[in-house]
Amino acid sequence: MVKGRQASGGEVGWIERIRRRAVLPPESGVFLGIGDDCAIFRARGAADDLLFTTDMLIEDVHFRRATHSAGDVGWKALARGLSDIAAMGGQPRFCLLSLAVPPWADARWMEAFYRGFLGLAAREGAPLAGGDLARAEKAMCDVVVCGAAPRNKALRRDSARAGDAIYVSGALGGSALGLAMGRGRAWRRHLRPSPRLALGQYLRARLGATSAMDLSDGLSLDLRRLALASKLSAEIGPPPIYPGATLEQALHGGEDYELLFTLPARRRAPADFEGLPLARIGVMRAGRPGEVRLDGGLLPALGYDHWRN
Amino acid sequence: MVKGRQASGGEVGWIERIRRRAVLPPESGVFLGIGDDCAIFRARGAADDLLFTTDMLIEDVHFRRATHSAGDVGWKALARGLSDIAAMGGQPRFCLLSLAVPPWADARWMEAFYRGFLGLAAREGAPLAGGDLARAEKAMCDVVVCGAAPRNKALRRDSARAGDAIYVSGALGGSALGLAMGRGRAWRRHLRPSPRLALGQYLRARLGATSAMDLSDGLSLDLRRLALASKLSAEIGPPPIYPGATLEQALHGGEDYELLFTLPARRRAPADFEGLPLARIGVMRAGRPGEVRLDGGLLPALGYDHWRN
Repeated sequence: MVKGRQASGGEVGWIERIRRRAVLPPESGVFLGIGDDCAIFRARGAADDLLFTTDMLIEDVHFRRATHSAGDVGWKALARGLSDIAAMGGQPRFCLLSLAVPPWADARWMEAFYRGFLGLAAREGAPLAGGDLARAEKAMCDVVVCGAAPRNKALRRDSARAGDAIYVSGALGGSALGLAMGRGRAWRRHLRPSPRLALGQYLRARLGATSAMDLSDGLSLDLRRLALASKLSAEIGPPPIYPGATLEQALHGGEDYELLFTLPARRRAPADFEGLPLARIGVMRAGRPGEVRLDGGLLPALGYDHWRN
Repeated sequence: MVKGRQASGGEVGWIERIRRRAVLPPESGVFLGIGDDCAIFRARGAADDLLFTTDMLIEDVHFRRATHSAGDVGWKALARGLSDIAAMGGQPRFCLLSLAVPPWADARWMEAFYRGFLGLAAREGAPLAGGDLARAEKAMCDVVVCGAAPRNKALRRDSARAGDAIYVSGALGGSALGLAMGRGRAWRRHLRPSPRLALGQYLRARLGATSAMDLSDGLSLDLRRLALASKLSAEIGPPPIYPGATLEQALHGGEDYELLFTLPARRRAPADFEGLPLARIGVMRAGRPGEVRLDGGLLPALGYDHWRN
């Protein structure tokens, strides 16, 4: 999903230029557009708000044929969108898949791709409702996931308040470690991330989170985005680090697909949710919007920016 | 949108294999999946059904940098999805755009692309609600359009009945002629098709059409698909031909984006709708499903199959 890549470097980027020009008339039913994990649409008379997210996965940009099996590519193509739905506390409804198939992809590759994709779709209750299929030089897919959340209850990234505590789920840097290793448990975690759907719904419905987003591009960049959207600064200590990963990987590595969220100062998250650790790593402040400090020092936003990199 | 490319040649193709595996549980709210112009989703409590269509536009597959300006590419990327919404008699609600930008595309190209895209979006009431942006070797975009139609009223391609009259809007072959000429009025028509949204809503709400679809891949192939979906055969005479085009172009040329629809035998369409001619070209029969006859002879489905070609 277009998440506000203007966050990087401070320059007004393309996303911001598009967002300013993509006018949303009130009668369209879209009341949150470009800039969060999902767009939010309200159908006339509907009990729930609908969340929409769209993510591309491109050969030699997001994955390589030599190292990523077809099943892993199918899985991850859907997992990224499901993670956006999780970030807003939504429940998946359905998905759409556009797939461009290169000459080298044979029937076996296709079968395995769909097995990976549809396996996760079935597990998370996001049936494939449609899509498009074409040939192209490189493999590419674009996945839309639709989710639902009760009216006005979807978690957003622009609603944290000064004084809120900052939390992350799980341990960070595992995906970056896996990518560097190319084998082992961290590598499998990189290949088949598990969207935190149950946690997201718990944060929304039970824990009273004030904001949330998923960690797709690295804590330093994603927390900067959340802080920018909420017009606050953030002060954190070191986050929980995935076994074997470095602090650098935990701070700047992408694709962990854990959740980053805020709670009112007086509220405490439990130590874990269904076995997944929840760690308090800092606090939101009424400082310079988007500024993130680690142990008092300025933390540069070195996370992965698909657009800049 | 995945429209059932199994229609070509009679072999059970990938779309059919995917469709069979993409199980849609009733509680998902999706009650029409792969196989029509749009998927249909019903949100709990909503007054309208929501229609979703997704279409890719890929450099050197669907367009060429040398001949298609950025503005034309942006326009057509959205026009194709809007045409699917028109085919079901829907009203656009919003759209999502995933865009992969190649190294050669500079800021001017991007500006012009968005101008073309957002211009049509504003004209047709389909504001851009979100999307994704990435870099890639070739330009590629995937557009999702969401539309709405009253509950159970969306026009489908599987609901024609034996004896129904077959109609088309406009004149066919103009886009194929334009592509062959590379200039003039037909070429502009190829570059900037006009989705027949008002006509689609008129067919649904006023004229009582029994089925409809848009002509994206050529009459011979698209009518075969409608006939197959409705489990009927079709008998037609020559369709109206775009000035300067050949009968071959009118029968098999793609991208006209006119509407193909059926009416009960006793009902007559007016000669035009807001100046757009409506022509009766034949009748649906209880014959071999998917068979199309032109003046009594078998008409081969030579229309453009993005997957086969």
